[in-house]
Parts: sequence; C-alpha cells; structure tokens
Amino acid sequence: MKQSQLFNKTIKTAPREEESINAKLLIRAGFIHKEMAGVWSFLPLGLRVIRKIENIIREEMNAIGGQELLMTVLQPKSLWQETGRWSNGMEAIIYKVENGEIGLGPTHEEEVCDIARTLIKSKDDLPLYLYQIQSKFRKEPRAKSGLLRCREFEMKDLYSFHSSQKDFEKYYEVVKKSYFKIFKKFGLNPFLTQASGGEFTKDFTHEFQVLSQSGEDKIIYCPSSHFSQNKEISKVKAGDKCPLCSKILKQGDAIEVGNIFPLKDKFSKKMNLSFFDEKGEKRNVMMGCYGIGVSRIMGTIVEIYHDQNGIIWPKEVAPFSVHLIPIEISNSKVKKTTEKIYQNLQERNIDILYDDRQNKSPGEKFAEADLIGIPFRIVISEKTLKTNCLELKKRGSAKKELIKINDIFKKLNV
Amino acid sequence: MKQSQLFNKTIKTAPREEESINAKLLIRAGFIHKEMAGVWSFLPLGLRVIRKIENIIREEMNAIGGQELLMTVLQPKSLWQETGRWSNGMEAIIYKVENGEIGLGPTHEEEVCDIARTLIKSKDDLPLYLYQIQSKFRKEPRAKSGLLRCREFEMKDLYSFHSSQKDFEKYYEVVKKSYFKIFKKFGLNPFLTQASGGEFTKDFTHEFQVLSQSGEDKIIYCPSSHFSQNKEISKVKAGDKCPLCSKILKQGDAIEVGNIFPLKDKFSKKMNLSFFDEKGEKRNVMMGCYGIGVSRIMGTIVEIYHDQNGIIWPKEVAPFSVHLIPIEISNSKVKKTTEKIYQNLQERNIDILYDDRQNKSPGEKFAEADLIGIPFRIVISEKTLKTNCLELKKRGSAKKELIKINDIFKKLNV
Repeated sequence: MKQSQLFNKTIKTAPREEESINAKLLIRAGFIHKEMAGVWSFLPLGLRVIRKIENIIREEMNAIGGQELLMTVLQPKSLWQETGRWSNGMEAIIYKVENGEIGLGPTHEEEVCDIARTLIKSKDDLPLYLYQIQSKFRKEPRAKSGLLRCREFEMKDLYSFHSSQKDFEKYYEVVKKSYFKIFKKFGLNPFLTQASGGEFTKDFTHEFQVLSQSGEDKIIYCPSSHFSQNKEISKVKAGDKCPLCSKILKQGDAIEVGNIFPLKDKFSKKMNLSFFDEKGEKRNVMMGCYGIGVSRIMGTIVEIYHDQNGIIWPKEVAPFSVHLIPIEISNSKVKKTTEKIYQNLQERNIDILYDDRQNKSPGEKFAEADLIGIPFRIVISEKTLKTNCLELKKRGSAKKELIKINDIFKKLNV
Repeated sequence: MKQSQLFNKTIKTAPREEESINAKLLIRAGFIHKEMAGVWSFLPLGLRVIRKIENIIREEMNAIGGQELLMTVLQPKSLWQETGRWSNGMEAIIYKVENGEIGLGPTHEEEVCDIARTLIKSKDDLPLYLYQIQSKFRKEPRAKSGLLRCREFEMKDLYSFHSSQKDFEKYYEVVKKSYFKIFKKFGLNPFLTQASGGEFTKDFTHEFQVLSQSGEDKIIYCPSSHFSQNKEISKVKAGDKCPLCSKILKQGDAIEVGNIFPLKDKFSKKMNLSFFDEKGEKRNVMMGCYGIGVSRIMGTIVEIYHDQNGIIWPKEVAPFSVHLIPIEISNSKVKKTTEKIYQNLQERNIDILYDDRQNKSPGEKFAEADLIGIPFRIVISEKTLKTNCLELKKRGSAKKELIKINDIFKKLNV
C-alpha cells in the first residue's frame, strides 16, 4: 500500500491523560482512536493487526476441531436467570438495556449452552468444540490501561462439551498446547498460572500470564517455568523454594492474556444440557471454556515490544512486513527502482507499505517508521544505488546492511 | 468438511411463531439460532454464508478505494449531542446504558466524523473513503421477519469525505456501480429507488430495493428499470406511464438491501469537520454514506431463492459448493471412490460437504441436502459405479446427470 493513500497520521506527543505505554504508542502511531475510557476504535493500521491476531487464533482453533459460530451481544435476562448469574455473580459487570430485561454479553456460557442443548441429544453428538471471535462488554471502573482493560473488547471464546470428565481433561491438555503455540506466534511467553475460578468455577483454573510492569495481576513464579500461581491464591512467596525444582521463586507483575476454565457440570446441570449414554441414562454434559483476549493481545505485544522510538511488531502480527522508504524520490532513478521493488515484493505476497510521500524529510520518515514499527525497513537513495544496493534495517536493531538489489528477495525469504 | 463433524441438525417443522420464509428455512436447516425477537446467532453453517457475503463486499469496497476500520458499539452521548440526534432524530431507536450516558451505535456518522476530524486538515487529505463491517443495534418493535428486520444486525457502512460537492457526486456514481456489481454476485437485481432521506439528509436518497412479497417497503417501478420510487414519496402510481419511457408503472413489495445518502455538510458543519483549501480558506467537508445490510442480505437471498424443499443458495454465497452423498457407504468400493473424490475436490479448493453419516437413509440425506441448499449434489452408489459414473444434480433443477468420474472436475469448472 502507498503511504500517501493510508488513513494515518502520527503525532509527536500522546494525550496527557494516557498512562499506559500501549495506549500512548498506539495512539501516536495512528493504530487506535479513543471513544471514551476503555472503548477504542481500530483505525486501518490497527485493524490489520487485529485481523492477523484473529487469523492466527482461528487457524489453531480449527486445527483442534473447533467450529466457529457467532453469538449475540444482546442476551435475554431469562437465560441468565437459569444459572442465577444475572443477580448473583455477574450483576456488577453486565450492562443492561430495555428496563433491565436485556444484557450485553460479558461472556457467553449461558448462550452457548442454550445453543448446544438444541443439538446435543446422545453420546454421538459429543465431544463438541464451539468457538467465536466477538465483542464483549463489561462495566469496568478501572479502564485506564489502553487495550489491556476495556469496557468493549474483542475476545476469542472456545467452549468444549464432553461425555465425561476424563474426556474433558484430555482436551484441556490439547487446548493448553494449542495456546502455547498461539502465544509463541505472538512473540509472547506466558506462565501457565494456577488461579481461582471466580464466577466460572469452584475449581482452580489456568491463566496464561505474561510478565510485564503494566500487568494488573501479581504472580509467584519459578524462573524455569515449573511453577506459577496467582498471588491471590498462592501459599508460597518470592524467595521460597519452588515446590517442583530447586529454583528460588520470584514475584512479578503480569498481564493475563488467556485462560482455561474446567466448568464440569456447573452450567449444564442448571441449564439442562444433558445426553443419553449407552445405557440410555441421562447425564450432564461436562464442559470447559477457554478465552483469549484478542484486543488485549495487541496491547500486550506493544507493552513488551517497543523502545524509546516506538513499537517493534513481531512479524506474524505486524500491519505490514516491509516499510519501503525512498530518499530523494524526485530523482527518477530512485523512484523507478523503488516502484519496481514495490511491485516485485507485492507480487510475492509481501505486505508492504511504500512511503511515497513527497512532503516529508528523510528524518521525519524514519521517525514515523520507527514509531509504526514495521519489522523491515528498506531505504533506497542515490547513494545506495551507486553500488546497485539498498539499505536494509531490522526494526529494533541498530545494524544497517547494504544489500545488492537482486539479493533482497533471498534476504527476506520470499 | 465431513457432515458427521458439522455442528448441525435439521428439523422438520419450524417453530410456530416464525412467519417469514427466511426464518423458517434458516432455522430448519440449522443456519441460525434465535436468542429473542430480532436477535439471532449464526451457527457454523450460517457463519460461512455471512463470511462469504462480507468478503464479496470487502473486495469491492477495497476496489473503490475504501479503507477498512472498526468502530465501536458503545458511543458517548456527547458525540450525539454535537449533531442533536441524541434527542432529536435517533432517540426512539438508540439503546442506552449507564444512566443514559452511553448509546449502542445504531449508525456511525457521528463517530466517523469524530475520527476523520483528527486527521483531515488540508485538501491533500481528501477524498477519503472509510468503511467498516460491524454490528449495529436499534430498538425495533416490529422485529418479526427473520433476518430482514433485527435489533442486532450486521452492516457494512462506507463514509466518503470530499473537498467539493462535485467530487462527491463523481464518487456517488462509482459506489452505485460497485453496489450493482455486489448485488449481482448475490443473485439480487435491485431497483435503484428514489426515497426520502429520513434522519440522514433532507435530499432524496437512493435505496436498492429487491422485489419480494416479504418486503416491508412499497415501490412504484418501471419494469424496464428506468424509474423507481419509494411509494412514501412518489407522486405517480401503478398504471401510470413511466416518466422516462412508455412502459406502464407497477407497484410491488420490496426489501431494502442497500442505500446511499448524499449528506452534503449536514454532519461536517455541526461537528467542525473542515479543511483548508488552496486559498487557505476553511471549508466544510462534503460527505456521503453508503450502507449494505450484511445479515439482511442473507435473509433476502433465502426469500428469493427457495422452493418447497428448502433453500437454493447462489454459488457465490453458498456455505459449501458441493454436497457429496454416498449411498451404501458400507460398500467398500462406494466408500473408497467417495473419499477419493472428496480429497481431489478439496485439493482443488472446492468447499465440499461430505455426508459421511451412516445412520441416515438416502431419503433423509436427500431431504436434508435440499433443505440446506448447496448448489451441486453428487451422489455415488453401487449402481452409478457400475458404469464408472456418479450422479450430478443442480439444486433447484430436476435434472440428474450421470457423469463419468473423471469428467466431474471439468463439469464443475475446477
């Protein structure tokens, strides 16, 4: 895409009210627009990142048997009354309209059970894995950390349905593995952290916690990842020995980027979600639910991957892979070579942003490129063309390489 | 995909409360699930159709310079007060939360102007075309016609920003052409219909109206498409001569599947969305907005394309292209051939649904296939294999063709 055509303007200073690194950088670089506390629009550059995050998650959910559906924001009170959570559990966070008769879905256990019970009749209908990628709404008095804690936010929520607790436990391990694969693609290394189940289950659950000073959770963890507990429930503390190895436990602030809840029959029992087993006996379906915060992931990545100049996107989620910047674009040889490379890279399906703007100095272009944070920067100038070269720089690295023009495809692995 | 794995169950009779054809068929075939009046979840089969509709629209919006962004459901009252529509125009349809301080977006003119004014400064920033595909919310007492009139529904909304009315008018024609291209892919032939601008503009607008007995609008139209007006504003009537040709005008019920509004500076003036022209003078941005109801399109297609046995999806939006049905799947030759064809078609990127279920009779399978409405049905049985053939049938046609197995790819154009 040509940068002159992109709906994007960077700004030098973030609004004073923003405290979090992710909000400051994402606003300055033109990825998001604030509607109000905890409510953000995604501008074209930001939506590109969201779509890449979604697609990575979608691919992995499909790979573990997930079937995508799309549930609703508006949910009837009657559904929530079946489980009692309307007035006992979720009442503080559900937005309500129509004189309190309709809620905006803060989560979808009730709705997915209602859908599943229309179809699950016998053991043959199990197991079943349903997921969606959808906007959720929660009252949130502390919406101050950019995309990390929002009132409107995008989530992937997977729900699994099983004929036995044992079958659930097997799938729980499958999802765990899938989650680590997903987070690795995002460049995140979360600690699998034991935590309380809150309004979802009386059992312990697993949170995926990424160490970050901006995190609102505190975890007690083993530096070799043998152990991690949310401080809220932990009986050990920093300085203690890890119960599973000899390492010394540490305490750290962390962001919860995902979670998995063993629900057992908590919801199915109350909502009459059952099946007939081989003996013709009626039994409750066993369930699990598994979340990943899509927009929160975007914020977390920025919290982890940035420097004083801007964002440093991991390549799997970057809005573009290559930022192509000609210097002296008025020089016809520079322009011609740049446009040829632009075309060649596009033909190789490389997401490329071509800074074709004439009214910006090289210094301004470089500063904006650093702020936006595209993984590879290619600079072409009269000087580089003297040796038939272009300059390649990886965002986040100081090293600039002069590369022969014909070698660029090999260098970028395309 | 194997049908045994698909989260889908068809039912023989639609719920009594449903009156519309699209709701009856989409529920019976397992595409949608009703949460409450005018609020529908999309089951895996239904979401496949929605995604195809979205992608056709997205491709065409990008082709006419549109940049996709994603705005929010929650919108602050203050934004709506700038144009006065909070209490004068939209008050009857906006759902409100937080003591009436926040609305659920019924449309996004205010929000998109707020975003655009942070970036539009000079004439160089124009024209600009922004669109999104997103859920909208409107209070709707008459939500009785399936996907045709909903309280929560998906829409594509494009907004264009121009430095002059003339430039807007040029783009208006571009979008008109693009819309006809899009609707053609959906198998719809709308009449471009003059109508009133409602809360959007004092000018006339254009609605894209598809003739259908389920339509809630009435249009006066020329059978040769030279003329069409919404009856609400029309000064002619059925039986009159078309003002533009000699044909006799007709009256018909119609579904509004899209609309385009010339907004001029109605919003930009009130929201201070302006730019500096060449002379350094401040001028209001001229605007247009252009909607297509994504979920309504799905309902409209079913209203138009069905017979007494079920849905007949046009191939561009069908959940799958081919329905592969083996008879006597217990016969090893039938099974082996079927699975080979299944694999071969998948390798050719054909969306294929393979009915591998063992516990259904051929009659049941055929009835379900007709109900679901996939464009091509391939049947393989001992009998067809005797002549090394399979049976091909187009949904909606009575004709069954015996085709040599090796000719199937040519026949399907893959």
